[in-house]
Amino acid sequence: MPDAFRSVGVTRVREGRRATDLDRAATEEPLEIRLHGRPFAVIMRTPGADRELAAGFLLAERVLTTADDLGTIEYCTDPTADHPENIVNVTLANGSADALDRLLADRRQVTTNSSCGLCGRRTIESLRTDAPPILASWTIGASTLASLPGTLRAAQAVFDETGGLHAAGLFTPDGRLDSVAEDVGRHNAVDKVIGRMLMREALPLSNHLLFVSGRASYEIVQKAFLAGIPLVASVSAPSSLAIDLARDAGVTLVGFVRGESFNIYAHPDRIV
Amino acid sequence: MPDAFRSVGVTRVREGRRATDLDRAATEEPLEIRLHGRPFAVIMRTPGADRELAAGFLLAERVLTTADDLGTIEYCTDPTADHPENIVNVTLANGSADALDRLLADRRQVTTNSSCGLCGRRTIESLRTDAPPILASWTIGASTLASLPGTLRAAQAVFDETGGLHAAGLFTPDGRLDSVAEDVGRHNAVDKVIGRMLMREALPLSNHLLFVSGRASYEIVQKAFLAGIPLVASVSAPSSLAIDLARDAGVTLVGFVRGESFNIYAHPDRIV
Repeated sequence: MPDAFRSVGVTRVREGRRATDLDRAATEEPLEIRLHGRPFAVIMRTPGADRELAAGFLLAERVLTTADDLGTIEYCTDPTADHPENIVNVTLANGSADALDRLLADRRQVTTNSSCGLCGRRTIESLRTDAPPILASWTIGASTLASLPGTLRAAQAVFDETGGLHAAGLFTPDGRLDSVAEDVGRHNAVDKVIGRMLMREALPLSNHLLFVSGRASYEIVQKAFLAGIPLVASVSAPSSLAIDLARDAGVTLVGFVRGESFNIYAHPDRIV
Repeated sequence: MPDAFRSVGVTRVREGRRATDLDRAATEEPLEIRLHGRPFAVIMRTPGADRELAAGFLLAERVLTTADDLGTIEYCTDPTADHPENIVNVTLANGSADALDRLLADRRQVTTNSSCGLCGRRTIESLRTDAPPILASWTIGASTLASLPGTLRAAQAVFDETGGLHAAGLFTPDGRLDSVAEDVGRHNAVDKVIGRMLMREALPLSNHLLFVSGRASYEIVQKAFLAGIPLVASVSAPSSLAIDLARDAGVTLVGFVRGESFNIYAHPDRIV
């Protein structure tokens, strides 16, 4: 397993003075995800929790819908592979050769099946056919919500010595951090924490909330929704389509969580 | 053209008090890029500079290599389309039907042509076969470099009323901002400024530098390299693969530009 960060030479310039030094950079390397030995996708990611990343990615791609669909997830065992640590092979349970052919063919046609009437509305409708709205009835206190960024940063400080990693954390409604992941890619960090829970057969995550270190885009809310997470919060702004999806899908969406202040963009009733 | 931001209802929570208000969210909508009327890719983006985004994206995908390859870029003119403003059709100059078939077939096989020996090194080698290293000989003063974040923020303040947009700026070595773009996606903002210059037939951009508001990942440096940009700077951290590519490709890479302090990760000689 490559390290999550790497030592690199750096020229530091401070108020006009230069010094040569060593710095740490977040590792970014390609991960190839295979289905039954056949290439499915290549993702640029920070090494670590690769099997979890593959599981979460395949959930968001709707190749997996439950843990029951998952057979095995293993690193490449081909003795001739130069970098088997950058290849993960996934087998599907109950997956017929026919179904696999269909999946791989669909994947190749992903760019060809959108109609000319392309809009955010249709994107959401297509997603909503795959899962029912979220109806979880728990609530979270505003002060608990306000504590999440600090808890996530404290956990991240252990790993992130580079200043270059995004973090995603799964919390329980009482503010306990259940699972955390980091990655140069914000989406990857989310796939890692959700994939870990999928592998533990803990989906749907109706008693969890997702906190992310960056912005909340459509895809972040999509990943949460498909995992059954009723609340998504972030330190920064959500996009318009993230808000639209959250409202439609029954997901509470919170942005700009800073101290005791935050903005609720969808389904505010879960916050008391 | 949809607006770059949209008015949304929000519940603001401030020190325990709630108020219902209106907020602005960065618009995120899908853009479908077609080649000669055939679907090539769908990108989630903030509307605005869509033709430039398409041009920059196709350059980074190596469908275009120079402005000479570009025929026309137009919004969808199909009168039956629901959202023609979210569809851009590109025609290639001198593009035979055969070459187009090959491009679209390659696109569909993008996930199937990586060998088992997958590593960052090979990713860089494959890219480096497409373009020579950058040899531009200009230099930039440290104080000019230090002025870039402020200049970019000032330009961004005009557009970004949401706190949710990334910015990319093309500067001349004397610190003048030549072109700026914003988007919910960091990569899109870079594609927009580079695509704009491609459409102006101004590539290679050997007398420009690129400044980005977020992290510098592999793909950001890749896009700059393919456009011939000799210097990439950002307010945040670069990834390991971004550093490797910059060193190999002759690109100066600067991170953590804050006041008069910054770190140089590759080719420091361009900064004096």
